[in-house]
Amino acid sequence: MKLGFIGLGRMGCGMASRLLQAGHDVAVFNRSAEKMRSLLEQGATGTASIAEVCEADIVFTMLSDDHAAESVVFGTGGILAALRPGGIHVSCSTISVSLSARISKAHEDSGQGYVSAPVFGRPDAAAAGKLYLVVAGKNALIEKLQPFFDVLGQRTFALSDDPEKANLVKLSGNFLIASVIESLGEAMALVEKGGVDRHQYLDLLVSTLFDIPIYRNYGAMIADRRFDPAGFAAHLGQKDMRLVLAAAEELKVPLPFASLLRDRFVSLAAQGGDSLDWSAIGSLAAKDAALLPGRSE
Amino acid sequence: MKLGFIGLGRMGCGMASRLLQAGHDVAVFNRSAEKMRSLLEQGATGTASIAEVCEADIVFTMLSDDHAAESVVFGTGGILAALRPGGIHVSCSTISVSLSARISKAHEDSGQGYVSAPVFGRPDAAAAGKLYLVVAGKNALIEKLQPFFDVLGQRTFALSDDPEKANLVKLSGNFLIASVIESLGEAMALVEKGGVDRHQYLDLLVSTLFDIPIYRNYGAMIADRRFDPAGFAAHLGQKDMRLVLAAAEELKVPLPFASLLRDRFVSLAAQGGDSLDWSAIGSLAAKDAALLPGRSE
Amino acid sequence: MKLGFIGLGRMGCGMASRLLQAGHDVAVFNRSAEKMRSLLEQGATGTASIAEVCEADIVFTMLSDDHAAESVVFGTGGILAALRPGGIHVSCSTISVSLSARISKAHEDSGQGYVSAPVFGRPDAAAAGKLYLVVAGKNALIEKLQPFFDVLGQRTFALSDDPEKANLVKLSGNFLIASVIESLGEAMALVEKGGVDRHQYLDLLVSTLFDIPIYRNYGAMIADRRFDPAGFAAHLGQKDMRLVLAAAEELKVPLPFASLLRDRFVSLAAQGGDSLDWSAIGSLAAKDAALLPGRSE
Amino acid sequence: MKLGFIGLGRMGCGMASRLLQAGHDVAVFNRSAEKMRSLLEQGATGTASIAEVCEADIVFTMLSDDHAAESVVFGTGGILAALRPGGIHVSCSTISVSLSARISKAHEDSGQGYVSAPVFGRPDAAAAGKLYLVVAGKNALIEKLQPFFDVLGQRTFALSDDPEKANLVKLSGNFLIASVIESLGEAMALVEKGGVDRHQYLDLLVSTLFDIPIYRNYGAMIADRRFDPAGFAAHLGQKDMRLVLAAAEELKVPLPFASLLRDRFVSLAAQGGDSLDWSAIGSLAAKDAALLPGRSE
Repeated sequence: MKLGFIGLGRMGCGMASRLLQAGHDVAVFNRSAEKMRSLLEQGATGTASIAEVCEADIVFTMLSDDHAAESVVFGTGGILAALRPGGIHVSCSTISVSLSARISKAHEDSGQGYVSAPVFGRPDAAAAGKLYLVVAGKNALIEKLQPFFDVLGQRTFALSDDPEKANLVKLSGNFLIASVIESLGEAMALVEKGGVDRHQYLDLLVSTLFDIPIYRNYGAMIADRRFDPAGFAAHLGQKDMRLVLAAAEELKVPLPFASLLRDRFVSLAAQGGDSLDWSAIGSLAAKDAALLPGRSE
Repeated sequence: MKLGFIGLGRMGCGMASRLLQAGHDVAVFNRSAEKMRSLLEQGATGTASIAEVCEADIVFTMLSDDHAAESVVFGTGGILAALRPGGIHVSCSTISVSLSARISKAHEDSGQGYVSAPVFGRPDAAAAGKLYLVVAGKNALIEKLQPFFDVLGQRTFALSDDPEKANLVKLSGNFLIASVIESLGEAMALVEKGGVDRHQYLDLLVSTLFDIPIYRNYGAMIADRRFDPAGFAAHLGQKDMRLVLAAAEELKVPLPFASLLRDRFVSLAAQGGDSLDWSAIGSLAAKDAALLPGRSE
Repeated sequence: MKLGFIGLGRMGCGMASRLLQAGHDVAVFNRSAEKMRSLLEQGATGTASIAEVCEADIVFTMLSDDHAAESVVFGTGGILAALRPGGIHVSCSTISVSLSARISKAHEDSGQGYVSAPVFGRPDAAAAGKLYLVVAGKNALIEKLQPFFDVLGQRTFALSDDPEKANLVKLSGNFLIASVIESLGEAMALVEKGGVDRHQYLDLLVSTLFDIPIYRNYGAMIADRRFDPAGFAAHLGQKDMRLVLAAAEELKVPLPFASLLRDRFVSLAAQGGDSLDWSAIGSLAAKDAALLPGRSE
Repeated sequence: MKLGFIGLGRMGCGMASRLLQAGHDVAVFNRSAEKMRSLLEQGATGTASIAEVCEADIVFTMLSDDHAAESVVFGTGGILAALRPGGIHVSCSTISVSLSARISKAHEDSGQGYVSAPVFGRPDAAAAGKLYLVVAGKNALIEKLQPFFDVLGQRTFALSDDPEKANLVKLSGNFLIASVIESLGEAMALVEKGGVDRHQYLDLLVSTLFDIPIYRNYGAMIADRRFDPAGFAAHLGQKDMRLVLAAAEELKVPLPFASLLRDRFVSLAAQGGDSLDWSAIGSLAAKDAALLPGRSE
């Protein structure tokens, strides 16, 4: 079975590398060709176009946003046009629910398979095959893909026949993480202004009720006020809040925390922080409380 | 060393019981005398007044709110009047930062010791000596009390010389927990309306990034829509949001998540839910989304 | 000078009628032809296509949303294709800033004129020529159009060379009105639950500090709890909050009131209220306060 | 009939002056005696204590907050102790609903009359007798007081037998005004960042739908970014939001706009702005949008 992989950012690169290490035949493509280099050294087949990658039986995509995904799928020479009937597109990108539904319909109409498989995990987890995969699509397809999912992640959650539900769950998960960040930012601003050391406070939290990496890692970034380099950039977090709110509006579900988080990301962007780690919204409560220098300088 | 214990609700009862099991001599008092019964059977000395309990060297209090604490401390025949100079008052109640500061000052003026030691943990943790104690007060006092703290909890965090800082940290912790509840309520309403089973969703969350009891337990209550009986009643959660916002206003720290949580508790109370478990605010997003029957019937 | 008018809903119909009454030669088009009838009786020329209307020198559009405007302008046989070079498109619709900018660019590229002229006022004001027009575009075009604007409205505000700025101002105005509605809804729920008659309360407000039709009219709808028939439907209000937030996100301006208003409209829609008057969001505070029966029945 | 007046700030001073001009016999008291001077020149009788003022038949109070009102009423030698049975206390201060209820009960128990009569209007309106009075209390008392109310204001709104309802209405009115300020602040930040001149924008607003002094005056302060000197200080606005939220929590009415306004005032205070005019919260959206220099310098 031949595999293809489109989108070789830090996440995609780690995932493609895992597939190669497992002995698979992987053709790769990336808009900026230099990102292919390390994979070629690991045995990947370089290609010059999406169409060329689509000669594979199964094509994975890991793209940064709706715009990229839309053009890779629907563009001239895109996956939809190039993938043979019976071929499978596995979309791992965090894209909107509505785009995922649109891609699903288009593949269906073209006799191609489509499985949505967004992931939880940072680049190091991708490289180590420790991702969590949230998967939705036709059962038969998921069964066929399971061996590859087992190479990419430590666990697969198969949710539904409708691919876009995986995207909804993925976006909701990013909303939950952003809520953790904001709540930590507020709590730390409060106790710090009350005279409690914020590192000591964080230690208390993660030694007791909040003993998971999310609290530990984002808490440390907020306590250290160190948001650079970004593990996951704020502008991507902003995009995800926009997508979760768009899905919620479509489904008629008001999400007050998500609305507030969106405002936080907009505020951070206004102050020039959109390329910081998304946990930088956790510094805004401290700025509002005048614990940190003003917002816009 | 003789101990006293005032306030024998489910938390206080478990704590006093632990002290008795450790072999200490404990005099107890509760406004409603029948709550003393089981402790008397365990060897506690019953008393008829706060003043009588205050013949002890160290008096613990575990009371439900500022009103109760204020009257037990400052009322006629209260701790302030009855405790001998050199006696120590250990306040485990979740009370306001400002009341704790006021009690601290009053004990100081009366030559009595005061340590604030609010706890994290539910009644079963209290009974098992598995609480986390957040402690602040004079170092010498804390050292003297450490053996008792070791009986009550699995770990003690000594924060500061100023007793009220322990109260600030405790309140901030309840804010963090309430934020988890609200975020889970919103996320579950979203995915459910999108067609994902909410128990399956919760399983995904707590098997991956959110593998701690707070997400597991509150998530289960929200997924099951079962908020009765209350482990921690909504009206107490509402009180804590009020206290955290009062402390924040005093310290000039805007807390948008906390403001929103306060509105949620007010809404729940308006609909008659104030004696439900506080995780019932996690059902309001589903109500707003018309997943659940209307709000006020 | 020949005029064209596309979009004959209640607003467009009143406006086209004014132009006819002023003696102008007006060709009209509407997707559902029966809406043309009354205008034909008033002397309008009926047409069978957008292209036919575009034989005029100046074409007005008054459409309900971005989707309609996009298809009327960019669709096959749309204004862009049909209007002769030098022809002018006057867009009175409340559409997004980004679509307006896109239309502007396209007309520029095609040698056609484009003026954005959204209006404030309800259908009765449109029929009476009492609208307020917020106008942006090239000065020379605005001067040429001024006589027509004078027929349509009681005052024209020329803002800028960039047509899309008129759309931004129009959307911001709808945000201000929605803020009035929400604040009235909250205040009335509060005083009513405190035992004050809400009509008496409204009388006090509009006799003193808030003596303008917006407070008077929306206040009466909220006090009467009568949101049907809709003067301006809630789903249009929801659309406008979405557009104002999209413009704000683009411009990097966090708007917490607008975020909250958006949640209100989503909540109203979830409860089946999207075809009520948009002032129905003014009943949600009363529902949250359990003054009104539950939300979803 | 002899009158007394306690609290001679800018509002109280103007009101007492009106009563003198109408020919009444007015004894005055203020904690800082120098504020009495101008009134003595106008014919007022100076006094050295609250008790001395309370020899009058009717005693007006105009005090800045609950703390002052509580001490003037309940303190040693306060109104409650000093006013003769049958005497009437007219409280014009903007105080909490709960304190007003407590004062009402105490006067009732002492055989004294109590009418709550908070006012809308700034100091110049007080001096000109152009206030609006929101009045509640026993009908017979209000009738007796009407001639004095007619001297103080342009219109009296008698609401209820329960004095505290007037306080609720007054607080709700300040909430409505603060909502206007915030909405203007957000709208102006939005259009300004979109390239529209904010003075031109304000002119458009107040020439059309928002043609009342509240929009005109606060809009001008926001457009001019001039919040000093304060007509009504931000810390008083903050107090009123706190009181309106406390009343709402007591009545179980969630007020999301009010919660957000409270956060704005806290943020303004953190940045050192609590003595600016309360319309300075209208600058925070511009700060969040990085239109203005950072927040805390």
